[in-house]
Amino acid sequence: MKKHCLAALICALTLPSFGAFAQGAPAASPSPGEIVAQAPASEWVAIAPEDLLVMELSADRDRKPRRVVIQLMPPPYSQGWVGNIRKLAAAHWWDGTSVNRVQDNYVVQWGDASEEKPLPRGLATVPESAYVAFTHITLRELPVQMTAEERAEALASAEQHRLEHWVQRDAYASEVKFSEGWPLGMDDKSSWPVHCYGMVGVGRNLSPDTGTGAELYTVIGQAPRHLDRNIALVGRVIEGMEHLSSLPRGTGDLGFYEDPAQRVPIVSARLATDLPQAAQPKFQYLSTEGATFERYADARANRRDPFFNVPAGGADICNIPVPVRKVTEN
Amino acid sequence: MKKHCLAALICALTLPSFGAFAQGAPAASPSPGEIVAQAPASEWVAIAPEDLLVMELSADRDRKPRRVVIQLMPPPYSQGWVGNIRKLAAAHWWDGTSVNRVQDNYVVQWGDASEEKPLPRGLATVPESAYVAFTHITLRELPVQMTAEERAEALASAEQHRLEHWVQRDAYASEVKFSEGWPLGMDDKSSWPVHCYGMVGVGRNLSPDTGTGAELYTVIGQAPRHLDRNIALVGRVIEGMEHLSSLPRGTGDLGFYEDPAQRVPIVSARLATDLPQAAQPKFQYLSTEGATFERYADARANRRDPFFNVPAGGADICNIPVPVRKVTEN
Repeated sequence: MKKHCLAALICALTLPSFGAFAQGAPAASPSPGEIVAQAPASEWVAIAPEDLLVMELSADRDRKPRRVVIQLMPPPYSQGWVGNIRKLAAAHWWDGTSVNRVQDNYVVQWGDASEEKPLPRGLATVPESAYVAFTHITLRELPVQMTAEERAEALASAEQHRLEHWVQRDAYASEVKFSEGWPLGMDDKSSWPVHCYGMVGVGRNLSPDTGTGAELYTVIGQAPRHLDRNIALVGRVIEGMEHLSSLPRGTGDLGFYEDPAQRVPIVSARLATDLPQAAQPKFQYLSTEGATFERYADARANRRDPFFNVPAGGADICNIPVPVRKVTEN
Repeated sequence: MKKHCLAALICALTLPSFGAFAQGAPAASPSPGEIVAQAPASEWVAIAPEDLLVMELSADRDRKPRRVVIQLMPPPYSQGWVGNIRKLAAAHWWDGTSVNRVQDNYVVQWGDASEEKPLPRGLATVPESAYVAFTHITLRELPVQMTAEERAEALASAEQHRLEHWVQRDAYASEVKFSEGWPLGMDDKSSWPVHCYGMVGVGRNLSPDTGTGAELYTVIGQAPRHLDRNIALVGRVIEGMEHLSSLPRGTGDLGFYEDPAQRVPIVSARLATDLPQAAQPKFQYLSTEGATFERYADARANRRDPFFNVPAGGADICNIPVPVRKVTEN
């Protein structure tokens, strides 16, 4: 029993990236996973194929393929780097590069270990201002025909409701929220994406405008939120995260592999739009503006399923992963 | 350069468990790791050998040994479970058991996969009340000869100073703090240990008093703080975390290994006091009551080293890992 009961506790906590939500009879206090499983089709939003980067690592020691799919974050959430990433993929730039660094409870990083591979022409230089580049996107969610008063009232009400239920306090931002599937930090002027588990960012040099998008990393531990607004985020891993997070940790400084033979070769990285139609993966995310997400986030902040004695009364934004599912057509 | 500069960013973020802090000339704005490297010997606290559980996994595929060392959390931070764990280790109970479950961004769990191995006699049944079992331990830190007013003033001052600098807001507890090396959540009545990366907890059945300490897990992803006060914590991994966190993820429900051959055998688990003197590992943690920890935590909340443009102004308690170092005598 012990296994299955600890199991019951943890069921709804899987990073819900693989459409594996349990189906069953509605429970009085459904778990977050059960809530998501009941979402109507209308609340699942298709991810555009030009926002999917499909990266094939070399096969593992058991000769099993290792595919990693990254959902790119379009503007205004990320700025010029995503355009660069599309150009790098079109140029097949990552083919033959490798995963070079795995630091426990921090990041996996990939790119050109020689640091000498020429970049394709036409990459944008993205200025420092782009780290916090957009004003409040709550405005996007409200009908444009509202008066200023109605708008202010609706915003206040929405924020109050939101904060009341889930993220009451955040250590890094005065407020946090979700918009169009992305977790954001906010202050009184602007919003920015935040470094949760599985988010993908752009390595850079000391000067903030030196990140091109060629050198990428993903978070494999406690959310390093102090990187928010200091390094650009460009997306998140939505399939195959385990192929990165379970790699052997590097024994060099900062987790770099000391022996080049330890690097994990990247066979290819393509936008889904550059794959043959039949090979294009299809994914959807659960709308963060819908009623189901509201219930799901509330249930993550206040677990009421049988295992729990003490509902937390709140949740960290990085403990409310946006549900993503793979669509397989028959 | 890119490698080394992203490297510079990340240098002080390694879970500082292996004594690998960079030594060098004092910098104007030292990184957290540089601050810790300058700590006087008097601020390093020896971990008692009866609080060290040394677990040997089977060798890996390259025949390298895999040792995991867990620092047990003594009362009042953890209650009867630690006593049970000492008895289980003395009975060699874990020898021949295995790691059975690895769920990405959540936990690694080990124990008896058959769920039928008899437990040694004399294990305590720990009641539900023990999940939040101690009143405010700030009292421990103040001289007992203080008057009530002096004590109240000292506490208020200490808390204000603490909150001002690092953890201003926590999503799960009204306040958080460190005491004697452990991260704690607090409300107005009590304190409890919190589920950060690497913390070790006790699997249990649906009823809260069913955890014995035989079935253990450690956190390998974003801190699942909703488990606080719902499952007992008993310690943290202080060496060899990578041997658990980099294991292949299980493909069964909740990350259980579907094929018994995938389980990772546990060769032995012993208290350090049961090892030959020469084989006993020695560790120290940085006092969380000292001046260095104060500076270290502040630097983690407000990075001022050259890479950073925007200091966060705060930190999550789980992003302030307590520095631990191994002591090797010459």
